[in-house]
Amino acid sequence: MSTEFQCPMCGEHRPVDPFSQFCPGCRSPMLIVYDDVQRAFHKESSGMLERYRDFLPLDAIHASLGLGEGHTPLQRLDRLMCISDGPEVFAKNEIFNPTASFKDRGTVVAVHAAEARRIRRIGTVSTGNMGISTAAYGARAGIKTFVMIKTDSSREKLFSAGIHGAELIQVGGDYGRLFELSLELGGKHGIYFMNSTDALRVEGYKLEGFEIFEQMGDDAPDWIFVPVSSGGHLIGLMKAFKELRTQGMIDRLPRFVGVQARGCRPVARAFQAGAERFTRIEKVETVAQSITNPSPPAGDIVLKWIRENDGEILDVTDSDILEAQRNLAELEGIFCLPASAVTLAGMRRLAQKQAFRPGDRVVLVITGSGAKNVNILDRNKMRIVQSDLVDLGDVIRERL
Amino acid sequence: MSTEFQCPMCGEHRPVDPFSQFCPGCRSPMLIVYDDVQRAFHKESSGMLERYRDFLPLDAIHASLGLGEGHTPLQRLDRLMCISDGPEVFAKNEIFNPTASFKDRGTVVAVHAAEARRIRRIGTVSTGNMGISTAAYGARAGIKTFVMIKTDSSREKLFSAGIHGAELIQVGGDYGRLFELSLELGGKHGIYFMNSTDALRVEGYKLEGFEIFEQMGDDAPDWIFVPVSSGGHLIGLMKAFKELRTQGMIDRLPRFVGVQARGCRPVARAFQAGAERFTRIEKVETVAQSITNPSPPAGDIVLKWIRENDGEILDVTDSDILEAQRNLAELEGIFCLPASAVTLAGMRRLAQKQAFRPGDRVVLVITGSGAKNVNILDRNKMRIVQSDLVDLGDVIRERL
Repeated sequence: MSTEFQCPMCGEHRPVDPFSQFCPGCRSPMLIVYDDVQRAFHKESSGMLERYRDFLPLDAIHASLGLGEGHTPLQRLDRLMCISDGPEVFAKNEIFNPTASFKDRGTVVAVHAAEARRIRRIGTVSTGNMGISTAAYGARAGIKTFVMIKTDSSREKLFSAGIHGAELIQVGGDYGRLFELSLELGGKHGIYFMNSTDALRVEGYKLEGFEIFEQMGDDAPDWIFVPVSSGGHLIGLMKAFKELRTQGMIDRLPRFVGVQARGCRPVARAFQAGAERFTRIEKVETVAQSITNPSPPAGDIVLKWIRENDGEILDVTDSDILEAQRNLAELEGIFCLPASAVTLAGMRRLAQKQAFRPGDRVVLVITGSGAKNVNILDRNKMRIVQSDLVDLGDVIRERL
Repeated sequence: MSTEFQCPMCGEHRPVDPFSQFCPGCRSPMLIVYDDVQRAFHKESSGMLERYRDFLPLDAIHASLGLGEGHTPLQRLDRLMCISDGPEVFAKNEIFNPTASFKDRGTVVAVHAAEARRIRRIGTVSTGNMGISTAAYGARAGIKTFVMIKTDSSREKLFSAGIHGAELIQVGGDYGRLFELSLELGGKHGIYFMNSTDALRVEGYKLEGFEIFEQMGDDAPDWIFVPVSSGGHLIGLMKAFKELRTQGMIDRLPRFVGVQARGCRPVARAFQAGAERFTRIEKVETVAQSITNPSPPAGDIVLKWIRENDGEILDVTDSDILEAQRNLAELEGIFCLPASAVTLAGMRRLAQKQAFRPGDRVVLVITGSGAKNVNILDRNKMRIVQSDLVDLGDVIRERL
């Protein structure tokens, strides 16, 4: 199987190199492209990488590098559908990954690429979830791991990465500049920084799209809603369905809807303004901390691909996000990140505009567990009371 | 299929009744027993309850009550085995459940029993994990849910249960008395309190044992290490292999090792003293907060069954627990609760005594995610530094 990097913006080709992933011409992150050979799923394989190995740039797959990633459930949201007269809605629940977020899919592919090239140092720049994932897989592989994390990351996220023994560096200052600097320093010191739009990571996210296709009965859903931060996740999912189309396994792509938080919406703003390029956001302010990249490296690719494929990019308010998060927890038993709940909030926005036809099947991508970020929850919206043993009978009776 | 309650201590039989689960004679929790019909696994079914339905006291299974529980991976701990010259070690990783703990297996069975009997109020008494699980499944089922939680439970646990809309009551005072009082008040107000040793819950935990059997190639491992708090989980796992033996699917049970924390070891103390009954612990003090039941309702059953089957009950110190927790995270990428890490600490205790024969296969049950309880972690044991962008190059160079 022959693979190489290709720039999705200008078409430039280069050999695959983890240390040099940006197009020398237009500075866009490059993606992996494959030759035209017929490919198939290995349905007899239960491991995620084995099953989809025809669609991966890996010569060998090692169980010893895996932690049980992928094969997450697609859950029909029956009770949520009862309260809103709309399409058939499913959650692709990525909480069921080893470190409770979709990041694990990308990390396992990137760590395989590191292993194949005998790279002994890896790293990432993260608001939290990606740092935890990279630290866990680095530990499992026995590879020295550097995690650059924002100074304002929650204690839960900091410690959940630190427990794996990674070198954790809390860095103040501009996040976009940190992203660039990590790649410079990585090249210098032989540290493979598998950041958010890394081409190998994107190949891992792609496999989530293949699972949705299989779980829909070897078919594409009508809509897929995805949170957008750096853009890598959405690009990976779209790439899945583009490759399925190339292979003749589907004839149309789902309509993709990228959703951002109002308080950090560089891509949504550019989309709504009809611009081809996004401009960076100066001030970020939202409860959806996991999707707060003010200058998304894959932002322009997202704009291009969404436009070419009849998609949408929306932004939603914090109050809509928190309401959606609560609804998923109260009606469906799914406690997700605010950054995941943007998908339900986004779907509601489109429902108000009568965007859905009868019988449409909608997938909301639930990216990660809310348990990693309880600080943003409002105790006053919960039913919490105190009691001692003597009064317990009365307290219960009042609440029946 | 005919089922009833039976007291494992005195043999007394009663009809199954969620509201009356304790033996009228000896006050032990009763368990469900089945008639002698031949049973089989439905290997074509991917849902946990469907697959093992011949071994469950349920007439109907509803996908709408499930959240994707069970089918958790059995992971070979290769790197951990390298540093200790011992048996072949596997983790049964229960973190891969919907609310990141084994409790979900029990909750889904108990909620089915509630649904079948048209019970519209459920509840539980919990140090955290069981409360979160019951709140999530209650939400999914649309059943009013009461969670009694200890006043000193972590904010993460409190909010992770509260987000699902349950009535959350923080109760001060004796935990053992609260357990009893919940059952009294439940009977009075029609609230089915599915507490830790609930017979339906135990049937759910049993399914974890069936999965271990299947993942071992339709065979029993040589050893299974399980944390012990109330005793319900260990009883469920032992019941699995007892039923497999009754069915002729295995001819010997694994050796079960129950592990408690030194700071709360009522059952281990009784076992070591050769006593048939445990006595309650007055002062609980351990980092393993999820296994701090000072007066475990199933403690005497655990003592009896472990003795009858050549098992062991150990206790381990907090420093051994924390070291085991760190080792699992640093070597295998698994971040578990201290209450789960007791299993590795316990295995090491037995290894020191040369308990294992060459070729022995050992399963450590990893009960839940460490992310729910980061407060007990020691930042000084982690490699965390601060930096700004200017100094980042130097900071990395020093750590290569």
